[in-house]
Amino acid sequence: MISKTKSNKDIIGVDVGGSKIAVGLVSPHGDIKQSMVFETDVRSEKAILDCIAHAVETFIDNYEIKLHPHDAIGFGIPGLVDAESGVGIASVNLNWKNVPVRSELNARLNRPCVIENDVRVGAIGEAIYGQAVDASYFLYLNIGTGVSVVIMDDGKIFSGVHGLAGEIGHAVMIPDGPVCKCGGKGCLEAIVSGPAIALRAQQHAEQLHGNGKSGWSKEAWAEITPEAVFTQAVRGADFALKTIHEIGDILAYSLQYLALAYDPEMIVLAGGVVHGGNILIDHAQRQLSRLADESWVFGKIFTPDLVRISALGSHAGVLGAAALVVIDDYRKEKTI
Amino acid sequence: MISKTKSNKDIIGVDVGGSKIAVGLVSPHGDIKQSMVFETDVRSEKAILDCIAHAVETFIDNYEIKLHPHDAIGFGIPGLVDAESGVGIASVNLNWKNVPVRSELNARLNRPCVIENDVRVGAIGEAIYGQAVDASYFLYLNIGTGVSVVIMDDGKIFSGVHGLAGEIGHAVMIPDGPVCKCGGKGCLEAIVSGPAIALRAQQHAEQLHGNGKSGWSKEAWAEITPEAVFTQAVRGADFALKTIHEIGDILAYSLQYLALAYDPEMIVLAGGVVHGGNILIDHAQRQLSRLADESWVFGKIFTPDLVRISALGSHAGVLGAAALVVIDDYRKEKTI
Repeated sequence: MISKTKSNKDIIGVDVGGSKIAVGLVSPHGDIKQSMVFETDVRSEKAILDCIAHAVETFIDNYEIKLHPHDAIGFGIPGLVDAESGVGIASVNLNWKNVPVRSELNARLNRPCVIENDVRVGAIGEAIYGQAVDASYFLYLNIGTGVSVVIMDDGKIFSGVHGLAGEIGHAVMIPDGPVCKCGGKGCLEAIVSGPAIALRAQQHAEQLHGNGKSGWSKEAWAEITPEAVFTQAVRGADFALKTIHEIGDILAYSLQYLALAYDPEMIVLAGGVVHGGNILIDHAQRQLSRLADESWVFGKIFTPDLVRISALGSHAGVLGAAALVVIDDYRKEKTI
Repeated sequence: MISKTKSNKDIIGVDVGGSKIAVGLVSPHGDIKQSMVFETDVRSEKAILDCIAHAVETFIDNYEIKLHPHDAIGFGIPGLVDAESGVGIASVNLNWKNVPVRSELNARLNRPCVIENDVRVGAIGEAIYGQAVDASYFLYLNIGTGVSVVIMDDGKIFSGVHGLAGEIGHAVMIPDGPVCKCGGKGCLEAIVSGPAIALRAQQHAEQLHGNGKSGWSKEAWAEITPEAVFTQAVRGADFALKTIHEIGDILAYSLQYLALAYDPEMIVLAGGVVHGGNILIDHAQRQLSRLADESWVFGKIFTPDLVRISALGSHAGVLGAAALVVIDDYRKEKTI
């Protein structure tokens, strides 16, 4: 289990996204006592930082929250983050590069700030408040627009040599398969991410029904969401079920490889695709169970609760950001 | 780099196999100064232990090797080994279960003994004498009859929760593919192991030429070895080239997944298939290089020397067993 400071204080966690900033007050038990959501002003680096600081100050004023000057605030930031130096290295969503986020927020808010990449923050939240409270060694697989794994061992994130350990979203799962944002063909992310699910469903519908024969106009197809695919699959639509089965199989094979490579206590699944797509996760779980029945080696690793769905859901960002402040490792090395 | 004792002494390393026992005297620089090979007497647990002890004593007598009573001897043992307790938990090749190997050898040889699983011993040898001398974090992929990865981080083997971390030989790479010893279908081991290579080549030859048309009798086919497949591929035989290309592709995808999951300093390849199959490894390397050109994420991890062939070759067993004695971690916790 993670080494953490014993505190009865509520903590402010901030989830910074490209369109919205969520601020919440988190109790020591991981309950969100108050929260507010603000629009992100992404016109410039300075505008974003001002906007984050303004959101936090407005939240504190609005709920008349009493903070000690030494109380730290935790921030989950999209993109590449160097938590130790407190720098936002790059983010497509925030359109910034090498921004000294921590020192800028320190100066604006006049208190210690802790920052980390938003997906890693989700994993940390899981360790402090979620599925992995009793785990000392687990994987956290995020499936949303992007796909990546955070490896948490003994309260620390395992990063590898280039900070890229867990970037399995860019491992080829279908040779010469769908083109990925990274340039690869058939990467896991180009198969199981939200946009990839929508694209595949569209292709299957066209193949199975031809244009228009599914009852959907071309315009409607262009806007199909992963949620719509899940809903159609639950209703039994053939194109959607075919999509879910194919993608669920690939997800299962990837989870099996991860489990055999790392032999973790558990794998926590999170992200938009996971929380919206019960039918997809159920299919992957059934396939994993079948693989474990077949192989006695994998059978030694697999249990029905090896792969779990995040307990934090849509609050993962705020809870994880608050959790940053609780972890000794981040406090000691990365605040002030 | 691994924490090791500074010593100018030569060390005896013993590579115990199901048919042969190799004993060698290893210099501090990793040169094998003397070596002898003995047949393994596998009639009973006691016979094996007596045979190992006899081999070591004969070797010492034969070369008049002077040892201090506290000088430890290292042993690489096939199958599941609990290095800490010194127990050989199970081995198909030695046909034993739960044998207190270390204490039995201690008693017979009257000196400290260190034991570890033979594949792990290979990885440790690589860290002390081979490709990974300057690495602190690397993977060691063994491809022989079995296929598995050893993860070495900061001088320690990373084992996972059940001691199964790195058992990627049983990850499905071809859905519903060739049946594996573990019961799975399409496992990596059922594709890239020595026996799997021979089987696939045989199937391709039959498909391409029909029985006999390849100029080989059915009896010859039944005895085809991976080495013969490699030789035929080098000579340009279509069935062999097809085999090498298919297997090399799967090996490349598996190496890419490993590299993205772990982001290691290097991946060292070892085992019979690797040392015999230059043509296979070259193909996998070309594919990896292509994948790195395509994907900017994988491109950040891949370098032409990310994947390397073991420097210890057929001496890996004896060198690794000697290396066991050098590593502080093993000496402190696992000897006497």
